[in-house]
Parts: sequence; structure tokens; C-alpha cells
Amino acid sequence: MPVEPGTVRPGGRTARVRAAVLRAAEDVLAERGFARLDLADVARRAEVGKTTVYRRWGSVTGLVADLLADMAERPLPRQDTGTVLGDLRAEALLVQRTLADPRQEALLRAVIAAAACDERTAAALRHLHDVRVAEWAPCVEQGLARGELPRGTDPHAVVRAVSAPLCYGVLTSGLVPDVPAAERAAQAAYTAAAAGVYVVE
Amino acid sequence: MPVEPGTVRPGGRTARVRAAVLRAAEDVLAERGFARLDLADVARRAEVGKTTVYRRWGSVTGLVADLLADMAERPLPRQDTGTVLGDLRAEALLVQRTLADPRQEALLRAVIAAAACDERTAAALRHLHDVRVAEWAPCVEQGLARGELPRGTDPHAVVRAVSAPLCYGVLTSGLVPDVPAAERAAQAAYTAAAAGVYVVE
Repeated sequence: MPVEPGTVRPGGRTARVRAAVLRAAEDVLAERGFARLDLADVARRAEVGKTTVYRRWGSVTGLVADLLADMAERPLPRQDTGTVLGDLRAEALLVQRTLADPRQEALLRAVIAAAACDERTAAALRHLHDVRVAEWAPCVEQGLARGELPRGTDPHAVVRAVSAPLCYGVLTSGLVPDVPAAERAAQAAYTAAAAGVYVVE
Repeated sequence: MPVEPGTVRPGGRTARVRAAVLRAAEDVLAERGFARLDLADVARRAEVGKTTVYRRWGSVTGLVADLLADMAERPLPRQDTGTVLGDLRAEALLVQRTLADPRQEALLRAVIAAAACDERTAAALRHLHDVRVAEWAPCVEQGLARGELPRGTDPHAVVRAVSAPLCYGVLTSGLVPDVPAAERAAQAAYTAAAAGVYVVE
């Protein structure tokens, strides 16, 4: 059965090849950026035949799309601190720590660049983003159940409000947020949510 | 005197060539994206010699960097509605209208992709971002003078808080914000600012 390149999810040797290739792709993206991602280079680093990489992933954007799909399969467990503000602060600090890691910051730039160039990669980034937001949404849902936020508050909007200013700041101003910036992002989202800004009809 | 490609700011014929080339570059970026930007194609559309374009801009990222520098030179006058909330709402609606324009949305994706690939383009994007934030900061400064916000509030942080969720949403979820989303972004930034979240020591 023919499969679209980059969509295979098998076990055994194929899974090992995929893991090696995705790890090598991450290394290249973090070190050199998306513009210098090259399938032959990735194959060499992963110690995998060039033909295999070309056949299975087809293009650099196909490779980044599969990397994003792989990230989406690895859950990032959320914290449960017992309050919405505590949970949103934990989310903000997780984003802050991630962006403060030069490898992760470089990866964010690279996947945004790849997604801006290719529709399938953009869809994979949307999926990863939706998965991450859905992982953290229960902190708002539990807060709603505890009566901490107004009824009708959109959990996804609150979770996105925490991460957006931190990630967007890196992309536009190149500034990696510090811990106080993360605290402000969490406090701002919580304050607005508590005031009913994210209530949807 | 030798000049770095893409940094010339002269008048007369040179200015006309620059205007034609930047306009053509915008067209290509909006229609085909950054990955398919090609100096020869831009030269053809601008009806300018290929050699001129290669000599003056040197690379596709150099061309995008100059496009960003040109945008930064064209001011976007802010509105003055008399209240901070009104001004932030005007800012949010301006961002929303811009992103709802398919050409401008495509340009945002393209410049983010280019900036993710090249340090000089990233610096040009930072500069444009700083110019836009500084253009809108007076709405917060005037609000501070009128006593609408707590003393010590960082005007730039408030202005960024309005646009970040709208622009970041386009990049990650591909969702162009609607007018209610813009209203929420303004209201959220205002509510957080009024509660003192953006007060810096």
C-alpha cells in the first residue's frame, strides 16, 4: 500500500530509522536553522541511507511536518497546583524555560519558518499547538468547576493568552522572556479571565 | 564609497528603482511566500536589470530586510480616542484589519519566515516592531497622565499585549482573528494593565 512520505508510524527498524532521522533533523534545525536544513545532511548525521530519507520524507518541509507530528505524540504533562493562577503560572514558566533553552528557541524559529513556507507543515504546527492547548485546558476547566472564573470562560482562549505574548515576543523582538515576564503573562491572562474577558456566548 | 547591499537610501532614479523592486518583492511574497522569492523574478516584475537587484540587495533575505526597513519608514498614525481602552481597541482593530487582508497576512508569514532564517532580517523585523510599538505607546502614556492606569505601568508592554495574541494566533493556528477576538485582546490588555500587571519597578 503506498503511503504519503512522512506519514508512516510503524514499529521496529522503521521506527528506529524515524527516531534517528527526526533527532538529526532537530539537531540541524537547532544548529543551523530551517534555511540550511538539507535531507542529505540529515541522512548522513542519522547514519541512514539518503534514498530512504528522500523516499520517506520527500522534502525538508515534509521532514519538519513529521517532526511536529512526533512532538504532538509526546505529551507534556501539565501541573496541577490547585488554583487557576498557580496552574497558569506553571504553564508560563514551562514556556519560559523552553524558550530560554537555546535549542528549543532555535527549534521554535525553525518550525515557524517551515510552517510559513508550506501548508502541510502549517497544518502539523496547528495540530501540535492544539494538542498543547488541550493538554493545559483542564487547569481552566477545573478552575471553572471550583468557581474561580466566570461561567462560560473559554479554557483554550485563556491557555493561549498565557503563551502567546511569550512566544510572539521571541519571534518579533528576539527577546527571550525572563521569569518576571512569564509571571506577568500568567497574571495578565488570569486577571482578564477573572474579569470575564474570555466568556463566550 | 562601497555600501552594504540593501542599505542605500538615495533619491531620484535610485529611489524609483528601490520603490519598484520593493513593491515587486511584496507582490511575490504575498502571492507565493518567502520560500519562492527569487531575485531574478523580482527584477523581471520590477522591470529592473537583474544585475542591479543582485548588486544592491545581494540575497532574498537582504531584500526582505530592506522591505522591513522601508515599512518602518512609513508611519502608521495611531488613533486618539481620549481613553486608554478606546485607543487599545483601535490598535487591536487595526491589527485585526491588517491580518484579515490576505496580502498583509501573507506578508506577515513571509517576513517571520525570512527573519527566522537570517540575523540581519531578524534585526530589521525587530526594528519595525519597535517602531510600531513606539508609535502606539503614547496612548498608554496619555492614559497614565490622565490617571487611568497605575503609575509605573510599562507602555510598551501594554501595546505589545494587545497585538501579540492576534498575530501569534495567525502563525500557530492559522486563524485570522475576527472583530470580537480583537475586542477581547484590547479588553484583556486593558484589564490586566488597570490591575497593575504591567507595573515595572
